[in-house]
Amino acid sequence: MAVLALMTDFGTKDGHVGVMKGVCLGIAPDAHIVDLSHGITPQSVLEAALILSRTYSYFPENTIFVVVVDPGVGTKRRPIAAHIGKYYFILPDNGILTPILHTAKKDREQIELVHLNRPEFWLKNISNVFHGRDIFAPAGAHLAAGIDFKDLGDPIDNPILIDIPTAHNTNNGLAGEVIHIDNFGNISTSIRRVDLESHDRLVVRLGSAQISGLYQTFGELPPGELMALLGSTDYLIISKVDGNAANQLQVKIGDRVEVIFR
Amino acid sequence: MAVLALMTDFGTKDGHVGVMKGVCLGIAPDAHIVDLSHGITPQSVLEAALILSRTYSYFPENTIFVVVVDPGVGTKRRPIAAHIGKYYFILPDNGILTPILHTAKKDREQIELVHLNRPEFWLKNISNVFHGRDIFAPAGAHLAAGIDFKDLGDPIDNPILIDIPTAHNTNNGLAGEVIHIDNFGNISTSIRRVDLESHDRLVVRLGSAQISGLYQTFGELPPGELMALLGSTDYLIISKVDGNAANQLQVKIGDRVEVIFR
Amino acid sequence: MAVLALMTDFGTKDGHVGVMKGVCLGIAPDAHIVDLSHGITPQSVLEAALILSRTYSYFPENTIFVVVVDPGVGTKRRPIAAHIGKYYFILPDNGILTPILHTAKKDREQIELVHLNRPEFWLKNISNVFHGRDIFAPAGAHLAAGIDFKDLGDPIDNPILIDIPTAHNTNNGLAGEVIHIDNFGNISTSIRRVDLESHDRLVVRLGSAQISGLYQTFGELPPGELMALLGSTDYLIISKVDGNAANQLQVKIGDRVEVIFR
Repeated sequence: MAVLALMTDFGTKDGHVGVMKGVCLGIAPDAHIVDLSHGITPQSVLEAALILSRTYSYFPENTIFVVVVDPGVGTKRRPIAAHIGKYYFILPDNGILTPILHTAKKDREQIELVHLNRPEFWLKNISNVFHGRDIFAPAGAHLAAGIDFKDLGDPIDNPILIDIPTAHNTNNGLAGEVIHIDNFGNISTSIRRVDLESHDRLVVRLGSAQISGLYQTFGELPPGELMALLGSTDYLIISKVDGNAANQLQVKIGDRVEVIFR
Repeated sequence: MAVLALMTDFGTKDGHVGVMKGVCLGIAPDAHIVDLSHGITPQSVLEAALILSRTYSYFPENTIFVVVVDPGVGTKRRPIAAHIGKYYFILPDNGILTPILHTAKKDREQIELVHLNRPEFWLKNISNVFHGRDIFAPAGAHLAAGIDFKDLGDPIDNPILIDIPTAHNTNNGLAGEVIHIDNFGNISTSIRRVDLESHDRLVVRLGSAQISGLYQTFGELPPGELMALLGSTDYLIISKVDGNAANQLQVKIGDRVEVIFR
Repeated sequence: MAVLALMTDFGTKDGHVGVMKGVCLGIAPDAHIVDLSHGITPQSVLEAALILSRTYSYFPENTIFVVVVDPGVGTKRRPIAAHIGKYYFILPDNGILTPILHTAKKDREQIELVHLNRPEFWLKNISNVFHGRDIFAPAGAHLAAGIDFKDLGDPIDNPILIDIPTAHNTNNGLAGEVIHIDNFGNISTSIRRVDLESHDRLVVRLGSAQISGLYQTFGELPPGELMALLGSTDYLIISKVDGNAANQLQVKIGDRVEVIFR
């Protein structure tokens, strides 16, 4: 039974996600549909790219990710599908795959891309504003139902790529930026474990706060303290023990983060 | 494997929806349970009616919709089930089915209604405040498990109907009202594609805004512009390109919308 | 097909719940995954305990509950599993099971507890901050896939217990506290049906409000009225007919509630 994992910026109240599932089950009645997230900030291609790239590899092989964060819906942006390593992706061609394509190239994994230009795998009537329902869900479901990937459309080799925030060196350490704030107020940055290498005597500067040291677990400081540590996907995060760091520090996506090595 | 699609105004934090799913799986272990929406505005029968009527036909035939927006729970309002065309509905008798019944009558589809008055298809203990768990979920699950529709209860022919907002003619065009605001701030109105017919030279008035023309896709105007277009279910919507029209215009459900033909 | 019911305080926007489901499906492809709630107040072990104890018995026998409300993640708190009566629970050892253990002891149900100390049932790499993905989801999925409960780890008999709010007698009635506020603004208290026994001539005091009588259903008073009644799990609740009692009374979790018998 194929796994169809859905990610959108639709929220769940309007029924749009429900409709996509209805369409999928009409085409692939045995698909196992899983929600990855429907709470992506509306039209945030970068947030979708970051969350997808940090999560997809935990899914079973052959999972089909249907990702609809699609500010260009109804324009000439292409609907595409990708077969990268063990996974499939069905989505608008707007850069969401950038970090996954970077990793795949580095790891010399197989990459195949097609333009979803075969209307026989869409719904019959195509609206100009809801391709999640009319194109992406049915294309993903046809793949789940056994259509060959190559039959979904003509091959392409020029997907749109976007800039992904990273870290750069400064004269006394590194600088990066805030890239995500989670449900607990943990602040995720663009600085990775490999950027920090052997430096654990460090100070993190974020807004007006200076946070000393790199910890392993929340339990090492008392409740209420701010702490720098490595998150579950090996990025530097700033957390407040048993509290909400983002609320306390009033940070937002894109804010500068500095690391000073001591 | 039957599809059970759930729609409620319960939200998802309190565990009420989870409990309904637990009840369903105890009765119909192989049912495929799908969330249509649990974010209906509390007690808004009209919102439930509109979202259900715009989405149900995208689901596979024989889908069973269990809809619990039920301000009358514990009063004498009847729990009912409906078999309309290719679909089944299990819900309180409060008018949620109105637009689907109108369409079915117009299309001369088969309509069967029963009063859910057979306690053998309920849980053993019935609370006065949570019939979603005690009556609607088990009745839907018994139907999914193979019970005949007619066995769920005695036939009825007098379901409650409610007023559904439409459009009416004015001396220079049409007037309707705001009926939904989605996650992106798109403003959906009670004016349909058929109401506009061949008029694409039009002005939409909503609050203090005047919006000229009827567009096909978001890409036809630059980011930040307000735009009138036809939504994915053929109703007139007002959107802001890459933005949130409802926040900018400060509109709410029920606000008057005028269309002036030029 | 085993049912895996998930409850967390993760919210659904960050993809953490999606990742847990991906991990589960990689180990137990046929598991039926159900969301109980992901909207537990961050780090609220008590809220998780209350919602779990009021809902689990509506699920089919052998349901496996994976519960991750885990402020102690990465410290020495144990990951544990429990087999209680007909159900299984996989969770941190922080007291969430307290009310279920109390009931099971009273009802002389079988209770087995193990320390999840067998890394062969975890993911290969264990982060210090996300044991939901790395330990609890895989352990639950291995159980769903047929591993024997006793093989998950060494037996223990000293689970952490927490204080659960109850009601106590006063000179003219009872006192308890607010323990939950639901999506409708219904206020749930720690006072149970059995505490009230035959007293239906009572007054409830909550903040500045005095609410007379104990009603059976919302329909017995007109819209806008405050009402005391017994909720769907036999606790005293305060509701506003067709409205939001919590907003009107401005109450919060832990506020004192008094019942005066007349």
